Amino acid sequence: MSTITEIEVHDLRFPTSLDAAGSDAMNVDADYSAAYLRIVTDGPLYGCGFTFTIGRGNEVVCAAIRAWADRLVGRDAGTLDPTALYRELKTDSQLRWLGPEKGAVHLAMAAVMNAVWDLAARRAGVPLWRLLAQMTPEDLVEVADLQYLSDVLTAEEALELLRRQEPTRQERIAELERTGYPCYTTSAGWLGYSEEKLRRLAQEAVDQGYTHIKLKVGRDLAEDKRRLAIAREVLGPQGHLMIDANQVWDVGQAVEWVRALAEFDLHWIEEPTSPDDVLGHAAIRRQVAPVGVATGEHGMNRVLFKQLLQAEAIDFCQIDACRLASVNEIVAVLLMAAKFGVPVCPHAGGVGLCELVQHLSIVDYVAVSGDLTGRVTEFVDHLHEHFVDPCVVRDGAYVLPSQPGYSAEIRAETLASHSFPDGSYWRERAAAEAR
Amino acid sequence: MSTITEIEVHDLRFPTSLDAAGSDAMNVDADYSAAYLRIVTDGPLYGCGFTFTIGRGNEVVCAAIRAWADRLVGRDAGTLDPTALYRELKTDSQLRWLGPEKGAVHLAMAAVMNAVWDLAARRAGVPLWRLLAQMTPEDLVEVADLQYLSDVLTAEEALELLRRQEPTRQERIAELERTGYPCYTTSAGWLGYSEEKLRRLAQEAVDQGYTHIKLKVGRDLAEDKRRLAIAREVLGPQGHLMIDANQVWDVGQAVEWVRALAEFDLHWIEEPTSPDDVLGHAAIRRQVAPVGVATGEHGMNRVLFKQLLQAEAIDFCQIDACRLASVNEIVAVLLMAAKFGVPVCPHAGGVGLCELVQHLSIVDYVAVSGDLTGRVTEFVDHLHEHFVDPCVVRDGAYVLPSQPGYSAEIRAETLASHSFPDGSYWRERAAAEAR
Repeated sequence: MSTITEIEVHDLRFPTSLDAAGSDAMNVDADYSAAYLRIVTDGPLYGCGFTFTIGRGNEVVCAAIRAWADRLVGRDAGTLDPTALYRELKTDSQLRWLGPEKGAVHLAMAAVMNAVWDLAARRAGVPLWRLLAQMTPEDLVEVADLQYLSDVLTAEEALELLRRQEPTRQERIAELERTGYPCYTTSAGWLGYSEEKLRRLAQEAVDQGYTHIKLKVGRDLAEDKRRLAIAREVLGPQGHLMIDANQVWDVGQAVEWVRALAEFDLHWIEEPTSPDDVLGHAAIRRQVAPVGVATGEHGMNRVLFKQLLQAEAIDFCQIDACRLASVNEIVAVLLMAAKFGVPVCPHAGGVGLCELVQHLSIVDYVAVSGDLTGRVTEFVDHLHEHFVDPCVVRDGAYVLPSQPGYSAEIRAETLASHSFPDGSYWRERAAAEAR
Repeated sequence: MSTITEIEVHDLRFPTSLDAAGSDAMNVDADYSAAYLRIVTDGPLYGCGFTFTIGRGNEVVCAAIRAWADRLVGRDAGTLDPTALYRELKTDSQLRWLGPEKGAVHLAMAAVMNAVWDLAARRAGVPLWRLLAQMTPEDLVEVADLQYLSDVLTAEEALELLRRQEPTRQERIAELERTGYPCYTTSAGWLGYSEEKLRRLAQEAVDQGYTHIKLKVGRDLAEDKRRLAIAREVLGPQGHLMIDANQVWDVGQAVEWVRALAEFDLHWIEEPTSPDDVLGHAAIRRQVAPVGVATGEHGMNRVLFKQLLQAEAIDFCQIDACRLASVNEIVAVLLMAAKFGVPVCPHAGGVGLCELVQHLSIVDYVAVSGDLTGRVTEFVDHLHEHFVDPCVVRDGAYVLPSQPGYSAEIRAETLASHSFPDGSYWRERAAAEAR
């Protein structure tokens, strides 16, 4: 028996707006933030989880985390079943009303369930990817939330799909242990960076072994052309060049803008318009081919992904570890994407998204899709120093995590310094601004 | 000059779960709640607004209201332009991240903008519907948020549509002043009510002049048949009988269930599945015709409504005054629905939704669609006693509101009694439960 005694909730904010890291056409002054919780027990067992925001409003998500998590206190962490808990939380009709299954309460449910899955993996003494990759196909189907999805994927189809990959799981684990999971970098392409800085960072990326580079676009067409010319020059004709508009266009404008950039041989256009616009993405995709369409970092839930796949609206499926309600909802999306043959290329960056999604990409390859074709997971090189078990990238690939858990734990020093507004960093900054 | 000095935020909850009012297949124990704000100035001018929730989590929305509304303090309420403010709020990229344009922050933006529109109508000395119905077509198009909609509705088309109705606005106002705006009642059909109570309330509704009755369904098919038989018997063969499943079915199950109820000659099936599932609603609609499909009370934003219309997924468009971000987003949806020829039948009930949507239905008829065919606005007879200017229904129709504002002000006594957890009602109940 290991009783949950407390849910600590921390509002952590990092001053990324100071150097324009994270800047794009929609989000000009992001202060990367985590609404973070720690499940505390009366024994050594614990679990950490978070969701990601970009500043103001992080306190709203913290309030929602408390609304979901308070009911955990007093339960036995030694036997807590993440999937049973997930099903219990999602049927809380009062909290469900605030979404349903979207927005701040859903982000908060992601945070809570990330912590519960972290705890479950620690309890098993394995990294999360291995906990999932060791499950039988029957157990993994049970994990997946298939509600509202039966018109495209039944439990029987999901089981069949997982069984097909089961006999060769160990081979793929061995392969990934040798090669890592392929990634790409966005670190060079923030819109607030000068063209000189873009050229330097792109060159560094190529030197480090990256074959994919992504640039933010959508503020000014002439500027986009100048920046893409630099990136293409550095990357060479063989490399993959992606662009990300962060939702700034209407459908027709997206088509025109992307067509105007055709000369740069683009691999994908990411978030061309509202993330909710399934039919809009489908229309854009038909008109900008062969440029692929990618979206999903703001994909609110599995029902949206179902429709993006049904409508043939995307070429790349960008799940987010903190917007979907953790493993139970994400496995459902991985299964649908595998059925439709659409590669999953998770969104990362922010605070700790890289730490989480590496596990999900590994599970996708080992247990679900069995395929690396077209797969590449985002990597952004900042804020990793705040994590107890930071991700490691080598030669353009994520090295397989080996510590128990979901790599979600943030260092005690960071909790003390970056809690908002009372952490030492924020207090000192407020004092300096008052002077 | 009338300076905004404070934004009061009140977490108001009503114990509706005690008598099963509001109970349906998804929401079994709703405690109807309002996240309510009052814009206070240093003069007599003020504005009130709210969004609606069903209990737990109302504090999360209150936190989000504070995040949006704090920036209003210090501004001049005498010149505050609702539309300029709306555009300012929606481009706050940090708060936008928590949606975007959905969930708790969007509900909170609805509450804030409802209060700002209430203030604007009070300032003009007219009810909100008249403030809008007096605007020129040019000004009303400016009010509408058309971002992400240009692939189905351009500003020019919207203007053309409004101009067509402009010359005859006064005739329709005069008509509504004679007849009121037609409504239907859900008060009889809650799932937690016994069959005897259902029969009695349905009979009362018919006696009061209602020609439409709606029942909650989806818990048990045999039970649904018994209850629909009672309602159809009381209503007679000519009356319109609607059902509401509150999202409990997957797509295939919805089709089967609704077909199994064909003998009751149903007018519409409301919320058959996930409110996010545009393609699912379209599939259901094709398969359950001639039963109409209605949805929208959980329609998160105008982009969802755009797609429901594009995909020919709905026969009835059920906007909600507290889930869409107030007048600016709602007018955009009214315009799209008018273009597609789909009748707007607003969702109401809850706390104060009837008070708000009556204004919107009037604007739709007077200035936008110019049509009453198939239109009927929901009415639920509870909690009106808490409002300073409660809606009035006579002979199955809303009487036109005549007081200045958006009918959104809640009585001071109610703020004192039903604030959670410190209002007198909740303190007394907690004391009684502790005994």
